[in-house]
Amino acid sequence: MTSILSSSPSTFLPSFTSHSYLHPKPLFHSHHHHLNLTTQQHFTPLRVNSTLSMDKEIPQSQRPLTFLKQSESDSSSTIRARFEKMIRETQDSVCNAIESTDGGAKFKEDVWSRPGGGGGISRVLQNGAVWEKAGVNVSVVYGLMPPDAYRAANPSSSSSSPPSPVPFFAAGISSVLHPKNPFAPTMHFNYRYFETDAPKDAPGAPRQWWFGGGTDLTPAYIFEEDVKHFHQTQKSACDKFDPSFYPRFKKWCDDYFYIKHRDERRGLGGIFFDDLNDYDQELLLSFSTECANSVIPAYIPIIEKRKDLPFTDEHKAWQQLRRGRYVEFNLVYDRGTTFGLKTGGRIESILVSLPLTSRWEYDHKPEEGSEEWKLLDACINPKEWV
Amino acid sequence: MTSILSSSPSTFLPSFTSHSYLHPKPLFHSHHHHLNLTTQQHFTPLRVNSTLSMDKEIPQSQRPLTFLKQSESDSSSTIRARFEKMIRETQDSVCNAIESTDGGAKFKEDVWSRPGGGGGISRVLQNGAVWEKAGVNVSVVYGLMPPDAYRAANPSSSSSSPPSPVPFFAAGISSVLHPKNPFAPTMHFNYRYFETDAPKDAPGAPRQWWFGGGTDLTPAYIFEEDVKHFHQTQKSACDKFDPSFYPRFKKWCDDYFYIKHRDERRGLGGIFFDDLNDYDQELLLSFSTECANSVIPAYIPIIEKRKDLPFTDEHKAWQQLRRGRYVEFNLVYDRGTTFGLKTGGRIESILVSLPLTSRWEYDHKPEEGSEEWKLLDACINPKEWV
Repeated sequence: MTSILSSSPSTFLPSFTSHSYLHPKPLFHSHHHHLNLTTQQHFTPLRVNSTLSMDKEIPQSQRPLTFLKQSESDSSSTIRARFEKMIRETQDSVCNAIESTDGGAKFKEDVWSRPGGGGGISRVLQNGAVWEKAGVNVSVVYGLMPPDAYRAANPSSSSSSPPSPVPFFAAGISSVLHPKNPFAPTMHFNYRYFETDAPKDAPGAPRQWWFGGGTDLTPAYIFEEDVKHFHQTQKSACDKFDPSFYPRFKKWCDDYFYIKHRDERRGLGGIFFDDLNDYDQELLLSFSTECANSVIPAYIPIIEKRKDLPFTDEHKAWQQLRRGRYVEFNLVYDRGTTFGLKTGGRIESILVSLPLTSRWEYDHKPEEGSEEWKLLDACINPKEWV
Repeated sequence: MTSILSSSPSTFLPSFTSHSYLHPKPLFHSHHHHLNLTTQQHFTPLRVNSTLSMDKEIPQSQRPLTFLKQSESDSSSTIRARFEKMIRETQDSVCNAIESTDGGAKFKEDVWSRPGGGGGISRVLQNGAVWEKAGVNVSVVYGLMPPDAYRAANPSSSSSSPPSPVPFFAAGISSVLHPKNPFAPTMHFNYRYFETDAPKDAPGAPRQWWFGGGTDLTPAYIFEEDVKHFHQTQKSACDKFDPSFYPRFKKWCDDYFYIKHRDERRGLGGIFFDDLNDYDQELLLSFSTECANSVIPAYIPIIEKRKDLPFTDEHKAWQQLRRGRYVEFNLVYDRGTTFGLKTGGRIESILVSLPLTSRWEYDHKPEEGSEEWKLLDACINPKEWV
């Protein structure tokens, strides 16, 4: 089997403020546009666009123990090594929990590496008994960042960009889980860590680092006990670290997942934070770990309660309409998705966040007081759930 | 029945190079965000965002004979009056043809006006026997354009913007027709005309005007005779005016409906042109009229042949995947849609272009040589059909 590979533009993540993409770091790798051709006869080669192209991802037959350089993985106490360990353990535990709850379907795994440094593991479960589409991706990438990108990613640095490339490191886990049953909510989470080293010609400059992430719930119908349980789990994780975290990150989440042209949010929120570096680095690593560990207890009990509820075609149609909103948010507003699309990240990894199916009806308005109306009302007017 | 209205940001179309939106001119009107509440008790008022808001659309109970000012409609020989007459006749004839072919479903009509001048007629047929969603919209709007917008819309003017607002006029028809049967293609067309007058303080400046538009076909499966018939009809319309039109506008269409992140086109093209003013104004009005008159003979015979073909769930799933691409193009790239979403055009009119249902499968690749593969190949490598 021969593949025709088309390198598409791939460029630098100009700011690490992007997020929520399923493929946590669409950095430096191109997507492979292959039609699985067995011959290349009578086939015009696909367009090759090398503008901004920096590096191509390479499929791997098996996952490595670590994506870090040998020298770094030896010192397992670094934040980099501990963050990679955390996201890979989270990927394993979330995938195991999903498979176990789904009761049959298995994740398909794609492992890739990038010559510039690092790689990733994409896992997708499609058309299961409980989930119609579930993606859980990790990536760990590093290399040299062009001076302009460094400046864009680090606006607080001096206004002149460094004259030479800046070493960077980026790692993250990202996941979107879309169940079939309209009473079982979609959930998304994403946790990431970013570092830059001193430019080579300015060895005295400090290492920069940021944490970001969040976990949010998108139901089509509100079961108040479910939403409270979800938010309470996020709050409990936050409260172990700082009483200001939950209110601050809850609001940040409501603000981020805003579909401006609808004046409504994608769902019922959760927590979201970005570019965090004004706390102790150890504290933020622990906090990210706590958040990641809260994903399963926040979500799986809800799915267990709702996955087998009977539903009508009307319930399903409403879920599909809300899935349409999910598509609108991700394609129009989500910074990671829009950045990935523009710069040639691996398209299938980026768009695995989209639901299997969705729906748009002209001028649909739920009847006041209906369950559909209550959901829409809560998306328009975010509520305090705990 | 009380509606809660939320004015959302509405601003100026900075350039008349946007197009292909179903609501031809999302200018100067805000969308009405109403939940059809019968009471306003216990309901937090929706967020009001007045930034850039310029003008609100007002629903009308019946359509006027003309959206033009009295003084202008009297002189029915102006290009404005004749263009409005043409697009409204086209709306009627296309809607009649769709209803007649559908055999039962009727268009729902929404008429609106804007206080600043003009208005529009949106017509949508949903869940018919043949079409799952069909929208045919016209709008005719005019008023005063802020100096900055004039400069943006007219970059060839002197580099200093006029010191006072510029009178403008914009009219267009736009339509997207999504059939149910996976062998029956989606079609889109859009024709528009734009004028600016001399700024009030520069009465000697020439009146500026542009024509734009196009008609394109998006099948899920290729019937070569259908695609040839469609393109031949476009070519025949073009050839009546200039032999360079079809090759030029065919390529423009392939270039415009390009989904960059997939390196493929939305469909199999047709014709597309924009900002045309380097021909005689009468010629371009006649050409636009000829193109609009070609919509029914280009499309309806194809639908008649394909609307009742038997199909499998697999055929339907492939159509749905292609509908997903339609959504990706419209939400990510289509200039009219993205502009309308950003600036608060009437959302339901803008997004009526989206299909009723769509689908995204992870890493779907059609088998080489299959009918699905042939369609994808033609979207990746545009072909000459006539």
